[in-house]
Amino acid sequence: MLDIVSEHRCFGGVQAFYRHDAETIGLPMNFSVFHPPVESRKLVPVLFYLAGLTCTEETFMIKAGAQRWAAQHGIMLVAPDTSPRNTGIEGADKDWDLGHGAGFYLDATQGPWSRHFRMESYVVHELRELIVREFNANEKRIGIFGHSMGGHGALVLALRHPDRYCSVSAFAPICSPMRAPWGQKAFSHYLGSDQAAWAQYDASELMKQRSTPFPEGLLIDQGLQDKFLQEQLLPVEFERACIEARQPLTLRLHEGYDHGYYFISSFMQDHMQFHHGVMNA
Amino acid sequence: MLDIVSEHRCFGGVQAFYRHDAETIGLPMNFSVFHPPVESRKLVPVLFYLAGLTCTEETFMIKAGAQRWAAQHGIMLVAPDTSPRNTGIEGADKDWDLGHGAGFYLDATQGPWSRHFRMESYVVHELRELIVREFNANEKRIGIFGHSMGGHGALVLALRHPDRYCSVSAFAPICSPMRAPWGQKAFSHYLGSDQAAWAQYDASELMKQRSTPFPEGLLIDQGLQDKFLQEQLLPVEFERACIEARQPLTLRLHEGYDHGYYFISSFMQDHMQFHHGVMNA
Repeated sequence: MLDIVSEHRCFGGVQAFYRHDAETIGLPMNFSVFHPPVESRKLVPVLFYLAGLTCTEETFMIKAGAQRWAAQHGIMLVAPDTSPRNTGIEGADKDWDLGHGAGFYLDATQGPWSRHFRMESYVVHELRELIVREFNANEKRIGIFGHSMGGHGALVLALRHPDRYCSVSAFAPICSPMRAPWGQKAFSHYLGSDQAAWAQYDASELMKQRSTPFPEGLLIDQGLQDKFLQEQLLPVEFERACIEARQPLTLRLHEGYDHGYYFISSFMQDHMQFHHGVMNA
Repeated sequence: MLDIVSEHRCFGGVQAFYRHDAETIGLPMNFSVFHPPVESRKLVPVLFYLAGLTCTEETFMIKAGAQRWAAQHGIMLVAPDTSPRNTGIEGADKDWDLGHGAGFYLDATQGPWSRHFRMESYVVHELRELIVREFNANEKRIGIFGHSMGGHGALVLALRHPDRYCSVSAFAPICSPMRAPWGQKAFSHYLGSDQAAWAQYDASELMKQRSTPFPEGLLIDQGLQDKFLQEQLLPVEFERACIEARQPLTLRLHEGYDHGYYFISSFMQDHMQFHHGVMNA
């Protein structure tokens, strides 16, 4: 059962918001889809966007300005919420960097989180399969990108499930959460104290264990005025890992830009063109 | 005294939010400016955007996607808040279509509103003069546009002060507020019961009294799925007035689009190009 929350014509396509009972999560989940204008029955490539801490399924669609390019290239955009909601877990609303709005795109193994906080399985399997089942999605051409916690999510999910994503990029991703306070806090709650388990959700650690996982390259944009750059995001760790893994990477450090959507929207066209190019290579 | 609330690099320019003590209003006011990337000391054209009911100085900058085109054309964008705030007027927070967030871009003549609700004077004089004084603004090339209540504002302010604006456009404007429930409610509170006073803030009535006030034409976009179209917006009244006034008008009715920013962002490029063209004619 897929409930349509709202639909809005946008750039000749349709901006839609949906709600469904997510089996993986055990609760209702919201997500958004931009359907590009297409000839009927034509299957279109799909690009998942994972948002950052405190965001929802609306943030990207309202703020990033991606629909123009998605309409032009004929790409479907899909944005899940950033965590389960209304879980009833004590403390899940207390901190902005843990619990609701802070799912970190992993499957929690520790109580009380493990019952509902299963965003990896939800995004990689359930939501993807729903999109392919319900809409004109080409499951052979699915890409993923994201911002901050969602940039971490995009990199980690693509590294853990490389057969599922053909193009990957990120804006200001948390590149090595096990070395950063946000990640350490989240991982200790969701995954327990075992650092080996943390490494399985750390993009830099995962990359080091691979050999050119994305031969078409990765695109990462990062603002130099981003106040989280040095302590939380650690793109240097990821670059080091890409060198070890012989992974082609375009990492662009932009003077003056900060961590927000004014930064993201400024470089959205480049990311959309990157995914379009890789998906059609 | 102009306080910088925040600054964000955006499309090579700067998205800034400011706060100042507004003399006209008698209270602090917020506004936002997108400064396009320019060679230093070059004066740039300015485009004011007036937002709709419930919006703030942030709405347009977050949702409309105009900065890309402003950067490209070298246009400064200025968005005031939609009303005075924290006025202490009883009932000013009660309704979403009256009081705070609903200033209607007029100078109120009736108590208790007349002390602070002077958005016309604020936008046309004080804020404009501040922008010209503080920034690299070319006061010979100032345009105005807006959405819904702000579309009403753009049309009415340009009609009442034609020497101050060289280009005018609107998204889904309230074209004849004195014939529509939102306008009737606001005008009766802000202007009293005299219909002649209402007509002085009604774009269609003002247009009828003019003769080709904007020889370069007007651009209006309107969605056909806009739920406010028939009762509140009344573009037919405005078209009728433009015919009487021999005012060139491009009114585009778009199938499927509604009243929100997914509609506005879809046609933002056209409006930016329209203003750029007229300002440089």
